[in-house]
Amino acid sequence: MTQYVYGKNVVKQLLQDNKKIYEVLIADGSRDTAIEKMLKEKKINCKIVSRKKMDAMLQGNHQGIAAKIDDYKTYELDELLESIPRGKMPLLVMLDGLEDPHNLGAILRTCDCVGVDGVIIGKHRNVRLTPTVAKVSTGAIDTVKVSMVTNLAQSIKYLKKQGFWVVGADLDNSKDYREGQYDVPLVLVIGSEGFGISSLVKKNCDYCVRMPMEGSVTSLNASVACGILLYQIYNGRHPL
Amino acid sequence: MTQYVYGKNVVKQLLQDNKKIYEVLIADGSRDTAIEKMLKEKKINCKIVSRKKMDAMLQGNHQGIAAKIDDYKTYELDELLESIPRGKMPLLVMLDGLEDPHNLGAILRTCDCVGVDGVIIGKHRNVRLTPTVAKVSTGAIDTVKVSMVTNLAQSIKYLKKQGFWVVGADLDNSKDYREGQYDVPLVLVIGSEGFGISSLVKKNCDYCVRMPMEGSVTSLNASVACGILLYQIYNGRHPL
Repeated sequence: MTQYVYGKNVVKQLLQDNKKIYEVLIADGSRDTAIEKMLKEKKINCKIVSRKKMDAMLQGNHQGIAAKIDDYKTYELDELLESIPRGKMPLLVMLDGLEDPHNLGAILRTCDCVGVDGVIIGKHRNVRLTPTVAKVSTGAIDTVKVSMVTNLAQSIKYLKKQGFWVVGADLDNSKDYREGQYDVPLVLVIGSEGFGISSLVKKNCDYCVRMPMEGSVTSLNASVACGILLYQIYNGRHPL
Repeated sequence: MTQYVYGKNVVKQLLQDNKKIYEVLIADGSRDTAIEKMLKEKKINCKIVSRKKMDAMLQGNHQGIAAKIDDYKTYELDELLESIPRGKMPLLVMLDGLEDPHNLGAILRTCDCVGVDGVIIGKHRNVRLTPTVAKVSTGAIDTVKVSMVTNLAQSIKYLKKQGFWVVGADLDNSKDYREGQYDVPLVLVIGSEGFGISSLVKKNCDYCVRMPMEGSVTSLNASVACGILLYQIYNGRHPL
């Protein structure tokens, strides 16, 4: 499968990294001499399209340029489960409504560092795997297995049947994260930047945990919260 | 003091938030009808300048637009130390060469959450307080005191004389972060995204700590690492 990714920096990065680009769409009247030079040098197929058409095709600030590239590799949920080494205590991360590619990239990076077995992302209303995610992940996009699922609540039910405990990161009706029991097959659920975990997903969590908060801000950045929780889980499983 | 901040989204955000804007510079030939409409409505003084002049004035991708605004409030190092409540165990964060405004914003947010008494940033080769930082910090830019200092190594020496211990986050010559002693007046030093802590600053740290790493990525995102360390320090000081 292929996807269109967009933005001047994104397309420039793809060209610099010599990634396979099937075609580039340029909005009528849009100019960028540096990118145009690279496209010419690499003999990449370019199409001029109307800005109106590009606006309709792409959700977001495309800056008049888009590139068609291969999708990043993803896995079926069962493939992901089967790939967990025997004897390892499984640890999965589920992202519910995450929108910021910087957060997803940073989360993948942390997942690589603590040995997370896979990341589960909803297919709808969620950030996808893009070149920005890849860049921020500093390579973790290739080492951490990602599964895109249609229905997160159904996936939780399925994982529970496989023996997983499901712990959400949420402020409401939650206990201090240091009181969680993590030495079990575990799914850690992280919610969206603006709204946290959706109610249906939350209803399916075994319990929720929160970090203590001393100040006036009411929540942590999603990738920071995920990092703190993943290291808490790691520390419980790998004591000094 | 005032500063120029730039980029279409940044200027648009300032206009939407009704922030005080002294003037807007627009590069000759650059157009953005949505921004121009808002500038006209708010009767903001606009100057057309050559793109060459803007390139020389501003370091970075200014996208043909810049706004002159008040600097965000910062503190002298001594003001910051004097503001620490009596009886509170002091905790400061020092950022050495941090460049990404998203990281600074996320770090300020975490600092608010764990009750950090102040953030020390070098005046040179470091990210400044900008509208992007403010936005990502979700308000913490107004609650966490920031001090901009000329020389980080000198500031460390001064802080040590005031009884602070200085702990760097670095992979080389470091111990596991769970072995650190944090129940003392403390400065946590976080290095730059690309190069970590500079050698002169590192030489002045009492010791360095690192997070265990299981995967192929060699470091965590700076704001994630800072969050994990700050909550470790917090937990040591506020056991369950």
